[in-house]
Amino acid sequence: MSGKQIEISEVGPRDGLQSISAIMATEDKKRWIAALANAGLREIEVGSFVPAKLLPQLADAAEIVRYARTLPGLTVAVLVPNARGAKDAIAAGAHKLTIPLSVSETHSLKNLRKTHEQVLEEVRQIRAQLDQLPAEQRPSFEGSLSTCFGCTLEGAVAEEAVLRLGEGLMKAGCDEVGLSDTTGYGNPVQVRRLIQLVWSHLGRDALNGIHLHNTRGQGLANVLAAVEAGITTVDASMGGIGGCPFAPGASGNIVTEDLVFLLEAMGYSTGVDVDRLMAAREVLARGLPDEPLFGFVPDAGLPKGFQYAEPQPEVVA
Amino acid sequence: MSGKQIEISEVGPRDGLQSISAIMATEDKKRWIAALANAGLREIEVGSFVPAKLLPQLADAAEIVRYARTLPGLTVAVLVPNARGAKDAIAAGAHKLTIPLSVSETHSLKNLRKTHEQVLEEVRQIRAQLDQLPAEQRPSFEGSLSTCFGCTLEGAVAEEAVLRLGEGLMKAGCDEVGLSDTTGYGNPVQVRRLIQLVWSHLGRDALNGIHLHNTRGQGLANVLAAVEAGITTVDASMGGIGGCPFAPGASGNIVTEDLVFLLEAMGYSTGVDVDRLMAAREVLARGLPDEPLFGFVPDAGLPKGFQYAEPQPEVVA
Repeated sequence: MSGKQIEISEVGPRDGLQSISAIMATEDKKRWIAALANAGLREIEVGSFVPAKLLPQLADAAEIVRYARTLPGLTVAVLVPNARGAKDAIAAGAHKLTIPLSVSETHSLKNLRKTHEQVLEEVRQIRAQLDQLPAEQRPSFEGSLSTCFGCTLEGAVAEEAVLRLGEGLMKAGCDEVGLSDTTGYGNPVQVRRLIQLVWSHLGRDALNGIHLHNTRGQGLANVLAAVEAGITTVDASMGGIGGCPFAPGASGNIVTEDLVFLLEAMGYSTGVDVDRLMAAREVLARGLPDEPLFGFVPDAGLPKGFQYAEPQPEVVA
Repeated sequence: MSGKQIEISEVGPRDGLQSISAIMATEDKKRWIAALANAGLREIEVGSFVPAKLLPQLADAAEIVRYARTLPGLTVAVLVPNARGAKDAIAAGAHKLTIPLSVSETHSLKNLRKTHEQVLEEVRQIRAQLDQLPAEQRPSFEGSLSTCFGCTLEGAVAEEAVLRLGEGLMKAGCDEVGLSDTTGYGNPVQVRRLIQLVWSHLGRDALNGIHLHNTRGQGLANVLAAVEAGITTVDASMGGIGGCPFAPGASGNIVTEDLVFLLEAMGYSTGVDVDRLMAAREVLARGLPDEPLFGFVPDAGLPKGFQYAEPQPEVVA
C-alpha cells in the first residue's frame, strides 16, 4: 500500500450531461449529486456557466451550485467559458472555476469561438473579479489545457505550445493549470513526459490534475502513468458519459466506477465506496432512463475478498 | 521511441472461439487466421486439443494447425490440457504447446478436473514425449499459471503458491511459465510485483509472457505495468472475444486492436498494421455474424497523423 490519496473529480454532471441531448430534470440532478457526494466523491463539477441557448442541458447551473454547496465537505466545481460566466458562477457560490483553453487554436475557435489571446484576456478579467473578493469567498481558478495530447482537427500538438499556453494561463491569473486529453489521443509515455515538462517549466504546484479520455481504450493506462508520475487529481465521469461534442470522433470519459477499483486495488485511497457509487449509478439511470451507461466494474462487481486501500468508514444509516 | 519489440500473441481463435456457443466454420477460421497473420501477428493460438465433445467449437484443431503451418513466419500455438492432447498437437505440427495449471486448486478441479499434482504429472509425460523428438521438430512448451492474480472461487491467491507451482512446472519439464489473470482480478502493482517475484525465484528466462483480462477495465493498465517491467509477449484477442467460461462472472480478453494502438503509440513495435487488422476483423465478423465484437480503436480509428513505433513495411498487393 502506498498510503497515497487520489482525488477523483467527478465531471459527469457537467461534461457528461452537456454531451447528451436529453435534459436531466433539476431535481434528478440534485439527487444524483447528493448520491455521488454520499459515495465519497469530494469534488464534483456540477455545471457550466454558458448561455442556456447553447447548452440547455445545463441551464440550471446556478441553482445546482447553490444546492451542491449545502452538501458537507464537497468542493463545488464549475466550468466557465468567459468572464461573464465566471461572474454568474461566483454569484452562485462555486468553490472552483475552470476555464478551458484549447492548445489547438483551430479547436479553440470551433469550441469557444475564441483565439488563444481572447481566452487569455477572459482569464485576466476573471482574475480581476476574483481579486475583488475577500480571500475566504474566493474560488480557486484553474486553466485547463484542452487538446494538449493532440487534436482531431490539427493532429499532433507541439509540447512547446502546451508549455507556452500553460505559462500564459498562469501569468494571466490562473492558480493552476490542468492537462486535458480532449480527443483521446494520449498515451502513457506522452502523459508522463508532458507532466514532467509542465512541472519543469511552471513549477510543481502549477499542475495537480488531469482529464483523460478512454476514446481508444487507453484511459486507465494513462491514469496509471499520471498517478505514478505524481498527479493527485483525476477527472472521471459516472458511467463514462460525456466527452467532447465539438471534437468529431472523440468520446468517452474515464468511467468513475472502474477508476475507483483500479486506484483502490493499487493502494491509492480515493475515499469512495463502490457500493454507494453503484447506488448513485441507479439514481443516474433513473434520471436518464434512455442513456447507455458504460463501465466494467458495474457488470463484474468487485473481486471476491476485495480490500480497499484504507479501511472504509462505517456507513451511518 | 524505446526501440523495443513486443510480441502480441493472438488467442482469439482458441480462447475466443471456445467461449462462445456459435461454431465457426473451418474454412472461415482459416480465412481469419490468414488475415491475422497478414496483419503482422507472428504468434497465433489456433486451437485446443481437448475432446470434441467438450469443446465442439475447436474440434477441427488438427486441421487448423496443419493449415496455419503453411503461413510463412507464423508461430502456431495451441492449448493442451494433458499428455493425450499434446500427442495430437505434436502430430499435427504445432510449434508451441501451452498447458494451463490453475494456482487455485478449486478452479483447477472445476476447469481441468485435476489436482495440481495430476497436472504436473501430465507435464512430465508431455516432456517425455517432447524429448523423444528431434530438436528441430520439438515444439516449445509453456506452463500457464492460471488464476495467479486471484480466483472467483477462492478469492485472493497466495504469491507463494504461484512461485511454488511455477517451480513445479519448470521442474516437471516446461520451457517457461506464463502468468494468467484468468479472472480479471489483477492490478498494475500486483502485476509488477508478481513478475519480479517469478524472475527472482525462477530466473529471468523462465517468464516472458502474460495473459491479462479486461474484466474490470484494467487490462491495458496492467499491460503497461507488465511491458514496462520487461515482459515481451502479451496475449490479446481480436474484438475482445473470449475469456474464461469456467470462472463465473469473468469475461473479456484484452482487445488486440486497442493493444496495438497503445503499444505502437508508446514506441513499442508490434509488427502489426492496424488497417490490415481491421480487414481481419471484417473476416471475423463475417465468420461469426451474430457475435458482438468489442474494442475502442475500431470505432474511433487511429489519431490524425498517427505514427507507428517503426516505419511500416510496404504492403505488397
